[in-house]
Amino acid sequence: MTPTPTGTVELDPRPSGTPVSRRGAGAAVYALTAILPALAAVGLLVMLGTSAGTARPVPSASGPVEHSVQLFAAIAVVILAARLFGRLARGVGQPPVVGEIFAGLCLGPSVLGALLPGVSAWLFPAEVRPVLQGLADLGLIALMFVVGQETRQTSFRGQGGAAVTIAHAGIAGPFLGGALLASLLYRDWAGPQASPVVFAMFLGSALSITAFPVLARILVERDMFRTPLGRLSMLCAAIADVVAWCLIAVMTAVAGRDTPVRAALTVTLVLAYGVVMTWLVRPWLARILTALEDRPEIRLLVLLAGLLASSAVTSAIGIHAIFGAFLYGLCCPSGSLSRLTERINSVSGLLLLPFFFVGTGLRTDVWRSGLDASLLGVTVLVVAVSMLGKLAGPMLMARSTGLSWPDSASLGVLLNARGLTELVVLNLGLALGMLSERLFVVLVAMALVTTAATAPLLSLLDRLTARRRDGGARRL
Amino acid sequence: MTPTPTGTVELDPRPSGTPVSRRGAGAAVYALTAILPALAAVGLLVMLGTSAGTARPVPSASGPVEHSVQLFAAIAVVILAARLFGRLARGVGQPPVVGEIFAGLCLGPSVLGALLPGVSAWLFPAEVRPVLQGLADLGLIALMFVVGQETRQTSFRGQGGAAVTIAHAGIAGPFLGGALLASLLYRDWAGPQASPVVFAMFLGSALSITAFPVLARILVERDMFRTPLGRLSMLCAAIADVVAWCLIAVMTAVAGRDTPVRAALTVTLVLAYGVVMTWLVRPWLARILTALEDRPEIRLLVLLAGLLASSAVTSAIGIHAIFGAFLYGLCCPSGSLSRLTERINSVSGLLLLPFFFVGTGLRTDVWRSGLDASLLGVTVLVVAVSMLGKLAGPMLMARSTGLSWPDSASLGVLLNARGLTELVVLNLGLALGMLSERLFVVLVAMALVTTAATAPLLSLLDRLTARRRDGGARRL
Repeated sequence: MTPTPTGTVELDPRPSGTPVSRRGAGAAVYALTAILPALAAVGLLVMLGTSAGTARPVPSASGPVEHSVQLFAAIAVVILAARLFGRLARGVGQPPVVGEIFAGLCLGPSVLGALLPGVSAWLFPAEVRPVLQGLADLGLIALMFVVGQETRQTSFRGQGGAAVTIAHAGIAGPFLGGALLASLLYRDWAGPQASPVVFAMFLGSALSITAFPVLARILVERDMFRTPLGRLSMLCAAIADVVAWCLIAVMTAVAGRDTPVRAALTVTLVLAYGVVMTWLVRPWLARILTALEDRPEIRLLVLLAGLLASSAVTSAIGIHAIFGAFLYGLCCPSGSLSRLTERINSVSGLLLLPFFFVGTGLRTDVWRSGLDASLLGVTVLVVAVSMLGKLAGPMLMARSTGLSWPDSASLGVLLNARGLTELVVLNLGLALGMLSERLFVVLVAMALVTTAATAPLLSLLDRLTARRRDGGARRL
Repeated sequence: MTPTPTGTVELDPRPSGTPVSRRGAGAAVYALTAILPALAAVGLLVMLGTSAGTARPVPSASGPVEHSVQLFAAIAVVILAARLFGRLARGVGQPPVVGEIFAGLCLGPSVLGALLPGVSAWLFPAEVRPVLQGLADLGLIALMFVVGQETRQTSFRGQGGAAVTIAHAGIAGPFLGGALLASLLYRDWAGPQASPVVFAMFLGSALSITAFPVLARILVERDMFRTPLGRLSMLCAAIADVVAWCLIAVMTAVAGRDTPVRAALTVTLVLAYGVVMTWLVRPWLARILTALEDRPEIRLLVLLAGLLASSAVTSAIGIHAIFGAFLYGLCCPSGSLSRLTERINSVSGLLLLPFFFVGTGLRTDVWRSGLDASLLGVTVLVVAVSMLGKLAGPMLMARSTGLSWPDSASLGVLLNARGLTELVVLNLGLALGMLSERLFVVLVAMALVTTAATAPLLSLLDRLTARRRDGGARRL
C-alpha cells in the first residue's frame, strides 16, 4: 500500500479545540491539562455508582497489590545500597565487594533489623523473600559461570607446575587448620546435619577458598594483572578453586545421604556429569557458540539456557546448582565469549548479586547468635587460623620453588582474599545444616576480615620491601 | 611494589610430576584427570566416616535444593519457549508477540497441564511460582516504562488535532461496545468484586486498548513507520493509551474501596502524584539524567531506582504498579535515553516478559472454565464487538478529517491490535476481581484474535486497494 498524503489533516490541526502542545512532551502535558480533570469527574461518578450499586463483598486490604510495593521498594533499596557501600569501600581503598557484603549485613537483622525493626519487617516480608532469593540464585549461578570462565581463561604459560604445587599448599595449609578447628568446634558449633568427618572436611574446604573475582579486581587495581606474580597468583587461585569446589561438591554429595549406597550413587553421578560435560559437551559448545557468533541474541539464549540447564542438572543430582554453573563456565569456549561474559558479569553484578549479599545478610543475625565472649573468641581464633594457613602454606611453598621472600609473601596475601566466593560456600554450609547459625556469623566475619586485610597487607609488604631495598641495596 | 621476575619458576615447570596441559583449557582437563579420581577416593572415605560416625538425623529429601532444580528448569523452558514460538509466529507472517502469548498459553493448564499434568505440576510448583511472578512483575514495569517512553517520543508534528479526534473515536467506539456488552454479561460473567458501573467501565477500557509496542513493530515490518499514516496511527495509539490508562487507573483507584471517602482519597492521591511527577519530577529527571550522560552505569541505576520507586508509589497509593511505571516513562527525557530504553526493552523482552506471558497462561484455564457453547458464543460476541468498535470508530472519524477510505480503514485495523497491553489490563482485572475466570479466558482469546488479525487484514486492504486502483484508474 502506498499511503496517500494526509495533507487535509495538517490543514486542520485542532478540530476538537483541545490545547495540544506541538512539542514532543505534548502527551504528558495533555494528559494532565485535559484528561485528568475529566477523569476526576468520572471517578466521582463511578464512586457514587459503586457505593450505591455494590451488592458484593469488598476486597481485603492485603491483596497481591500490597506486596508489590515492598517488592519494588526492596529491590530498589538493595540495588542502591550495594552500589553505595561499594563506592564507600572503594573510597577507603578497599575492593567494592567488601562494601557490598557490608551493605547486605546492614540491611539484615544485625543492623537495620536491630535499629529499625519496623522498617526491616516492612521491607522484607515473608512474601517478598522468595523473589529476592530467586534473584540471588540467578546472580549466584551467573557469578559461578563467570568464575568458571575466568578460571578457564587463566593461561598456564610455563608456570603450571609451580602453580599446581603452590595451589595445593594453599589448600593444604588452611585445610589442615580447618580440620584442627573442626575438632575443637564440632561439639558446640557444628550444624545439625554435620558428622565429624564431613564437618572437618567442610570447614577445611571453606577455609581454603580464594575469591577469584576479588583477586582479579585487586590485581587490576594495583597494576599487577600482567606481571608474572599476578599471573602466578591467578593460576594458583584457579587451581585451588577447582580443587576446593571438587572437594565441596563431593562433600555436598555425601552430606545427608542416608546410606553409603546413595552417597556413592551421587558421587558417581557427579563424576559422570563432569566427564560428559568435559568430553562431550565442551567440544560441542565450542562448535555451536562459534557458529552463532554473528547472531548474538540467539547465542545469548543458548548460553543462558545451557547455564540454567547445567545448574538444574547438578541440583537434580543432589549437589548445589553452583557446581553446574561453575562446570559450565569451565566448559564454554573462552576466547569468543569474553565480551558476552563481561556483559553478563556487569549486569548480574549490578542487578542480581546485591540480592545474594542481602540474602547472606538476612541470614546473619549477630544478636540472635549471642554476641558474647565465646563468639568473639572463636571469631579471633578462626580468623587467625585461616589467615595463618593461607599465608604460611603458599608463602613457604612459593619460596621453595624459587620466588623471592617478598613475592612469596605477596602471593600468600593475595590468595588470602576470600570475599564473595567464601560467602557462597558458607550459605551452602548453612543450607546443608553443616554450620550452626553462630558459626555462620563467625565465618562471615572471617570472610570480611580476610578480604579487607588484603589491600592493607599488600601495601604494608610494599613499604617493607622498599625499606629493605633502600637499606640493603648491596644484596641486589 | 615492582615484582621481581619469577624466572626460576619457569625453569622448573613440573616439579610435582602432575601432567598439566599447557593449553588454556588445562584447568578443566586437569580437574578430571588428576583431581576427580582422588576425590572419589576421598568421597568413599567420607562416606564410611559418615555412615559410621553419624548420630544426627538425616535431612529430608525435599530441601531448598530440590526447588532450585525446578526454578532453573522453569526459567530455561519459559525463555526458550517464548523465543521459539515467537520465531514460528514470524514464520507465518505474524508479529512475534502472537507466538509469545501462545507459548504462555501452551505452558499453562490449557495445553501442557491438560496433556502432561505431571510435567506441568513438576515444572511450576507452588514454591517456584512467586519467583516467576516476581520476574513477570519486573518485566511488566519495564514494558510499561518503555511504552511510556515511546508515547512520549511520538512526535505531534502538525497531526495533533486529527490524532486527538481519531484517538477519542478509537476509545469511544469500543468503550460504548464494552459498556453494552457489560450490561449483557454482568450477571453471569463479572468477577466477584465488580459493581455494575465499574464492570462496564472496566470492560469498556479493556476493549479500547491499543498495543503500542505491537503497533510499532507491525509498522516497522511493513515499512510504514515513517509514512504519514504510520505516524498518525502511532499518535492516535499514544493518545488513546494515555486516556485508557487514566480511565483504568481511576477505575482501579475506585474499585474495591469500601467507602466513597476512601475512593475519593485514592483518586486525589493519584491525581496529586501525576501532578508532582509532571511538574516537579519531570524537569528534575531531565536535568539529572542529562548530567549523568557520561556515567552510563550510574545513570542506569538512577533510572531503574526511579522506575522501581515510582511503581512502588502507585502500588502504595492503591492502584497498580504499572501506572507508576508508565507515568515514569512519560516523564523521563526522551532523546538522551533512547539507546538505554532500547537496551532495557531488549533485555526485558528476552528475559523478563516471557514470564508475564507464562503467568497469563497459567491463569488461563480453558478446561476449568468449561469449553461449552456459551463460552464460544460469548467469545465470538466479544471479538465481534471489540473489532467493530475499534475499526468503525477510528475509520469513520479518520474519513471525516479528510483521510481516504483505504487509509481510514488501515488506521482502524492498525489500532485494533491489542496484543500484550491488553493482557496487562486483563491480568489487572482478574487480580482486582473484576473478571470471572471464564471472562478472562474469553478476553485473552479476544486479545489473541484481534492481534493476529491485524497483519492479514492489512494485506487484504492492500490487495483491495490495488485492485480498485487497477480497475478504477480513471478516478485518479
